[in-house]
Amino acid sequence: MTTIHRGAALVIGNEILSGKIADANVVVLARTLRACGWSLSRVVIIPDELDLIAAEVQVLSRGFDAVFTSGGVGPTHDDLTVDAVAKAFGATVESVPALEQMIEERYEGQATAGHLRMARAPVGARLVATPELPWPTIVMDNVWVFPGVPQIFAMKMSLLRQELGANSPFVTVELKTQLDEGHLKPHLDAVVAAHPAVQVGSYPKWRDPTCRTLVTFDGLDEAAVTEARDALYARLEA
Amino acid sequence: MTTIHRGAALVIGNEILSGKIADANVVVLARTLRACGWSLSRVVIIPDELDLIAAEVQVLSRGFDAVFTSGGVGPTHDDLTVDAVAKAFGATVESVPALEQMIEERYEGQATAGHLRMARAPVGARLVATPELPWPTIVMDNVWVFPGVPQIFAMKMSLLRQELGANSPFVTVELKTQLDEGHLKPHLDAVVAAHPAVQVGSYPKWRDPTCRTLVTFDGLDEAAVTEARDALYARLEA
Repeated sequence: MTTIHRGAALVIGNEILSGKIADANVVVLARTLRACGWSLSRVVIIPDELDLIAAEVQVLSRGFDAVFTSGGVGPTHDDLTVDAVAKAFGATVESVPALEQMIEERYEGQATAGHLRMARAPVGARLVATPELPWPTIVMDNVWVFPGVPQIFAMKMSLLRQELGANSPFVTVELKTQLDEGHLKPHLDAVVAAHPAVQVGSYPKWRDPTCRTLVTFDGLDEAAVTEARDALYARLEA
Repeated sequence: MTTIHRGAALVIGNEILSGKIADANVVVLARTLRACGWSLSRVVIIPDELDLIAAEVQVLSRGFDAVFTSGGVGPTHDDLTVDAVAKAFGATVESVPALEQMIEERYEGQATAGHLRMARAPVGARLVATPELPWPTIVMDNVWVFPGVPQIFAMKMSLLRQELGANSPFVTVELKTQLDEGHLKPHLDAVVAAHPAVQVGSYPKWRDPTCRTLVTFDGLDEAAVTEARDALYARLEA
C-alpha cells in the first residue's frame, strides 16, 4: 500500500497578512510536493512574531511528516524564522563557519555584521545544498526553512524534488460540463458513492465559455480514476 | 486608544492544497480588512473534510474577533462548510424558506433538489444581504461564510466594508533603497529602536532595477510613521 507523506506549509509574513503582496509560494510548494508524491495537508500564514512562529513550528512539526517555512530568513530585525525554529526545538543558534566563509567570499572581504547574520543556523540543523544551489537550506529535524522571495523559493524546489524524490503516485483527470452544480449533483453523488477510492472535486466556473462546472478525479489507482470519470461521462451522455 | 479587531481567514479547498489552482482570495480579504481598520492575523488552508473544518472554525472563532471562510458552499458532495460551521456551534442545519423561494424564482420553478441545497443554513445564523448583493451571506456567530469562486468572493467584500465600516486607521509609507539588507541592517535597527510604535518591514527585491530593498513603515499614528521613514532617509543620505 502506498503511504502518502503529509506536509504542512508555514508562511511567515506581515506583508501578506496586510495585503501588501499576494503569497506566491504556496501554489509552487503544492505542485512540487504533489510531483514528489507528497500531500500538502495544511497551510498556515502568521505574522513576524518570534513566539508565535516557534509555537506554530512545534505544532506543525509534530502533526505532519515535514514542515516547509517561507519567509523571515534575511538579516534584518523582522527576520525571525531561524531563531523561532531553534526555539521550537529547544536549540540555540550558532554562526556556521562554512557559511561565514561563503559570505566573506561573496562580499570579497567587505561583509558587514548584517551580512554575517545570514550564517546563523540552529545547533543540530542539517545544511542541504546542491551544485546548482550552493547556498545551503536549513533543515531542522523535519522543518525546511525557505526564503520568502518568490524567485528564490521557486529555485529551492529542485532541492525538494531531489530530497523527497519525484515520483508522484497521484493520478488526476478532469471532465468539463455545461451543467451547473445543481443539475450535476445527483450524477456526482452516484459516481462518488460507486468509486470510494477516487476523490471527486466539483468547481463552478465563472463566466467561462468552455464549461460551467469542472469536475476533477484524483486517486492513486489510474484505472479507478479513469473509471470514475468515464462513469460520470456516461451518465451525462445518457 | 484605537482597538484593532483581529480577523482570521479559513480557506477550504483541496484544489488549492493539491496545487490545481492558486488561492486568489486571501489578498482580497487582507486588503478589505485593512481598509476597514481590521487586522488579518491568521490564515489557515485545509482540505474539504467536515470534522477538520468544524474543529478549525471552533478554534478560530474563539481566538479571533471574526472568521472569514472561503470555499465549500455549493450544492455538491465536496461542499461541507455550512454543515461544518453548524457543527462547530452545535447547531443543526435547516432549509430557509426565503432562500428556497429565491432559488425557485431564479430557476423559474425548475429548481432541482441540488439547487435547493443552496437554501441551507445553520439554525441561528444571520443572513446578510444588500440591494447590490441580494443573495445573502451566512454569518454564524462571528463566522462569515463566503464562496470560494474568486469573482464572487471579491463581490462579497462590499458587504464586509458595509458591515465592518471602511475607516482604516492604518498608515503605511515606503522607502526604496539600493542598499542590500546586510548594509541596511544597522540603520534599520537604529530606526526600529527609536520608533517602537511603528512596524518596520524590510523586503529584498529580486532583480528589480528600481530598488534592492523595499522598507515599509506601518502604524496608527501618521506623524510617527512618517517620522520613522524620514529618520531612515536621513541616515541613508548622511
